Amino acid sequence: MNEQPLLETRRRISAFVHNTPILTSQLLDEIAGAKLFFKCENFQKMGAFKMRGATNAIMQLSEAQKDRGVVTHSSGNFAQALSLAATNLGVKAFIVMPNNAPKVKRDAVLGYGGIITDCEPNIQAREAAAAEIVAEKGATFIHPSNDLNVILGNTTAAMELLEVHPDLNCIISPIGGGGLIAGTALAAHFFGSNCLVIGGEPMVVDDAYRSLQSGQIETNTTTSSIADGLRTHLGDVNFPILRQHVDHIIRVEEEEIVKAMRLLWERLKIVVEPSSAVAFAAVLKNKTYFRDKRVGIILSGGNVDLDTLRFS
Amino acid sequence: MNEQPLLETRRRISAFVHNTPILTSQLLDEIAGAKLFFKCENFQKMGAFKMRGATNAIMQLSEAQKDRGVVTHSSGNFAQALSLAATNLGVKAFIVMPNNAPKVKRDAVLGYGGIITDCEPNIQAREAAAAEIVAEKGATFIHPSNDLNVILGNTTAAMELLEVHPDLNCIISPIGGGGLIAGTALAAHFFGSNCLVIGGEPMVVDDAYRSLQSGQIETNTTTSSIADGLRTHLGDVNFPILRQHVDHIIRVEEEEIVKAMRLLWERLKIVVEPSSAVAFAAVLKNKTYFRDKRVGIILSGGNVDLDTLRFS
Repeated sequence: MNEQPLLETRRRISAFVHNTPILTSQLLDEIAGAKLFFKCENFQKMGAFKMRGATNAIMQLSEAQKDRGVVTHSSGNFAQALSLAATNLGVKAFIVMPNNAPKVKRDAVLGYGGIITDCEPNIQAREAAAAEIVAEKGATFIHPSNDLNVILGNTTAAMELLEVHPDLNCIISPIGGGGLIAGTALAAHFFGSNCLVIGGEPMVVDDAYRSLQSGQIETNTTTSSIADGLRTHLGDVNFPILRQHVDHIIRVEEEEIVKAMRLLWERLKIVVEPSSAVAFAAVLKNKTYFRDKRVGIILSGGNVDLDTLRFS
Repeated sequence: MNEQPLLETRRRISAFVHNTPILTSQLLDEIAGAKLFFKCENFQKMGAFKMRGATNAIMQLSEAQKDRGVVTHSSGNFAQALSLAATNLGVKAFIVMPNNAPKVKRDAVLGYGGIITDCEPNIQAREAAAAEIVAEKGATFIHPSNDLNVILGNTTAAMELLEVHPDLNCIISPIGGGGLIAGTALAAHFFGSNCLVIGGEPMVVDDAYRSLQSGQIETNTTTSSIADGLRTHLGDVNFPILRQHVDHIIRVEEEEIVKAMRLLWERLKIVVEPSSAVAFAAVLKNKTYFRDKRVGIILSGGNVDLDTLRFS
């Protein structure tokens, strides 16, 4: 691969996504001992970077495929992203959701025009429900993170960041399913100048850390992290990209995530998800490594439930 | 007065304050039925517009006055603003605070370099303590809202807003002590084009509403609003400006403030104080009036205590 697909992706989706702001904070720089550049995907349409990949994946379909719609299984940001991206492009989005998903998430999908199919809350049931929609409607299945067009869409966040700050020493992104960091890694490889890509991952769901150690895709036995976007594991499309282009992964404890999130809310005055705070927490954890470096941090999204989120 | 003092103020303080971002949201526009421009003073240094007035007031002192320091009584944003502005300018700031002020607010003042004097939590005690510092140290007392140089500093927020959007039909600001809306009104008068200034005020502390009705400064018998920045009453410096230049005041209920604040957090993904939400709540309350208008909204600050703030 060369940089052409990334450039084409950016041109393709630019009318449908925001070039999000990059925030800086003297006080957070002092706390971290580094120069930090926060890429604010919480300000992205529907509130998360997922809008980029979802939009690109749908735009790469043939007209015949678009006519038959798209399908995914997700109860999180990708469900909302695919729904909104599909609506923007005049395409139907079928969303398979567990029947115990919070009402606020169901309402968001419906609000963006998604068509919900309920399933039992387990992986077999949701894969079966999605497969049924593919078979019945001829809809195209789009995976939230293990899809090259989704990953290419995700590259555009770091591309925008590097366009403004081409001299970053490194970019940190959270790792969940691996789609964001794979895109970040490709962008840094083609558009950075010796710009390392580092992952932040919750210690309790450190499948990506273990996967890079063992050389094969590992899974988690628990999904208890507050960073609810990061509980999934890597896939065969993004894992090779991570192996080639991700420098290392920093694991953080749950209380470190909450502390980092609190700093972002209190000092940047922005609402970010726990998953976003994982990347910042990784910087705070390894201050010696980042000392005086110019560090990009991808704040992945800002969709939180204010009724349930608590800092104490 | 003409526009010269405003222009000079803006030049004077520009190195010490941020020209804060102006955010827009298609979704909030749809909800309001108007085109909204949010001036984000929550992103101002120390997290509130108060930084503007505090900086200007100190800069207008003589060198001899600066040598003796400044004093105010406040447990809120002005205490922090005066502390930081003074530190930036190499001046001492004496802050009289009630001895029951939350530790987080005391720590913020200390962090910005303010020197705290404790007093009993009543108005007589804090005025006496401030007067004693004036007498003993020769420090200059600076009122948080009823001071022309503070008001002139506050004009710069709306000036920046009107510079980018000169065609606003109106600007809404919250009303507490009257310093912000007085500054907003002067800016709209000199730099707007038939730009009305409207106040948002909590119903339970509607002293400004009643003052404009009666033609004299009224006070509140309760201070129970969640909008803790807006519990104070007007003063003899700002009240004449309000009488001349504020079109009208919209009063909002406590639950309307919380609902508006929630929309700002959830949709704009920013952290704003309840006082800031009052201005947006006023727009949501009188939708017919604002229909299809271009509306500036001053989001006054973003300093909240995440431990205690609850949306439900």
